[in-house]
Amino acid sequence: MRIMIEFKNEVPLLKGERIDDLERNGYGIIQKEGGFCFGMDAVLLSGFARVPKGGLMADLGTGTGIIPILLRAKTGAKKLYGLEIQPEVADMARRSCELNGISGEVEIITGDIREYKEVFAGRLQRFDTVTSNPPYMKIGSGILNPLDTKTVSRHELLCSLRDVCTAASALLKSGGHFYMVHRPLRLSEIFAELREAKLEPKRIKFVHPYADREANMVLIDAAKGGRPECRVEKPLIIFDKEGSYTKEITEIYGY
Amino acid sequence: MRIMIEFKNEVPLLKGERIDDLERNGYGIIQKEGGFCFGMDAVLLSGFARVPKGGLMADLGTGTGIIPILLRAKTGAKKLYGLEIQPEVADMARRSCELNGISGEVEIITGDIREYKEVFAGRLQRFDTVTSNPPYMKIGSGILNPLDTKTVSRHELLCSLRDVCTAASALLKSGGHFYMVHRPLRLSEIFAELREAKLEPKRIKFVHPYADREANMVLIDAAKGGRPECRVEKPLIIFDKEGSYTKEITEIYGY
Repeated sequence: MRIMIEFKNEVPLLKGERIDDLERNGYGIIQKEGGFCFGMDAVLLSGFARVPKGGLMADLGTGTGIIPILLRAKTGAKKLYGLEIQPEVADMARRSCELNGISGEVEIITGDIREYKEVFAGRLQRFDTVTSNPPYMKIGSGILNPLDTKTVSRHELLCSLRDVCTAASALLKSGGHFYMVHRPLRLSEIFAELREAKLEPKRIKFVHPYADREANMVLIDAAKGGRPECRVEKPLIIFDKEGSYTKEITEIYGY
Repeated sequence: MRIMIEFKNEVPLLKGERIDDLERNGYGIIQKEGGFCFGMDAVLLSGFARVPKGGLMADLGTGTGIIPILLRAKTGAKKLYGLEIQPEVADMARRSCELNGISGEVEIITGDIREYKEVFAGRLQRFDTVTSNPPYMKIGSGILNPLDTKTVSRHELLCSLRDVCTAASALLKSGGHFYMVHRPLRLSEIFAELREAKLEPKRIKFVHPYADREANMVLIDAAKGGRPECRVEKPLIIFDKEGSYTKEITEIYGY
């Protein structure tokens, strides 16, 4: 059996690209096989983040555009920006927005997080929500290929944790929220950089693959200029004992 | 039916005091009804903390002495100190050590955490392990009675989070570990103060009353001069759905 899914618009696909159904609002997303695909991290972050109705949001290092596209489907955000430094990845995200007929609401900008002042000139301190699923890994001693899109998205080659926090804080209005997904291994640095950027953690959720394993992801909600008072929510468990997705995960995915 | 428990030594009890069985090594502990009693926090911390065989440990703000007494039973620590500022509470802890015949190994010192240099003169940077179950609450606008032992143990009247971290760091040898139990609400300040004191969180465990509730305690293991890399262990759940203690809790309590 074959199921035909019809998306809003026709868009050209490049070699190796495919369209995946997001099972949300009839949206699809373009991904590149063996290349750049979104992960569960981004989906969980989009389930954790909140955008007020009519709000302005930006996603720093948007990749395929998965986060602003999902938040367009899930929230009442008025305008969503996705900033991506790699032109071919940004172009893919832009075509996904076109595919879904949401190019007016979701704008993909090709640019550098470190140049946020120029990129978002006139819109600094205006944002209600900033999100990021930044590169998790520090640059070690290994040889990295800066031309590989996967390397750029995983390693802090082109932007550090500090760069992301600094830009997020500069974009947010006072009381606005920054939502980030990261690795618990970096937790101590995350707290230090958030504090440095005047972003105060208010809500944290640890993600454990199983109930009896250590956390492999952390979701953080930090308020610009908030007072220090942090709630650690019930843990999010991905798989039950039988290895099936837990109820909470299937709800976030919307299956 | 009445069960007689025999402790190592006879000690005098003051008005309102009783002896509770710790169900560990035949140890008992003196507590004061309606006054100063240890909580689950201290028991969980003693299950989380580690002392190397032959090691030197100190507990800052020891109260009834519950932590060094339990660690004496559970680890191969050579010498354990409990520092307590309130003379009558310190005296109670000292009598508990006498009761159990461990006054040679567990020494209760009446003194102020803020005067750690004088209190531990000649032993700075010698400790393998420092523990603390410090006062959780900031001094707000309410009227507090500094003569009430419960007030002193719950509110940061006589020592702040910073005081505790500073003293812990000064006592520890390089690579030594500081174990603390605290409230998740203060997590952001905890990370900031630990970093300030060159104590790097290496292992964190959140304690949730039920699997679907937010955390109400956090156990932290920080290494002096460690590199930033933090593991968030599987959550510790206190009660199962039926409201009974979970297996992990009964194991820690040793029932």
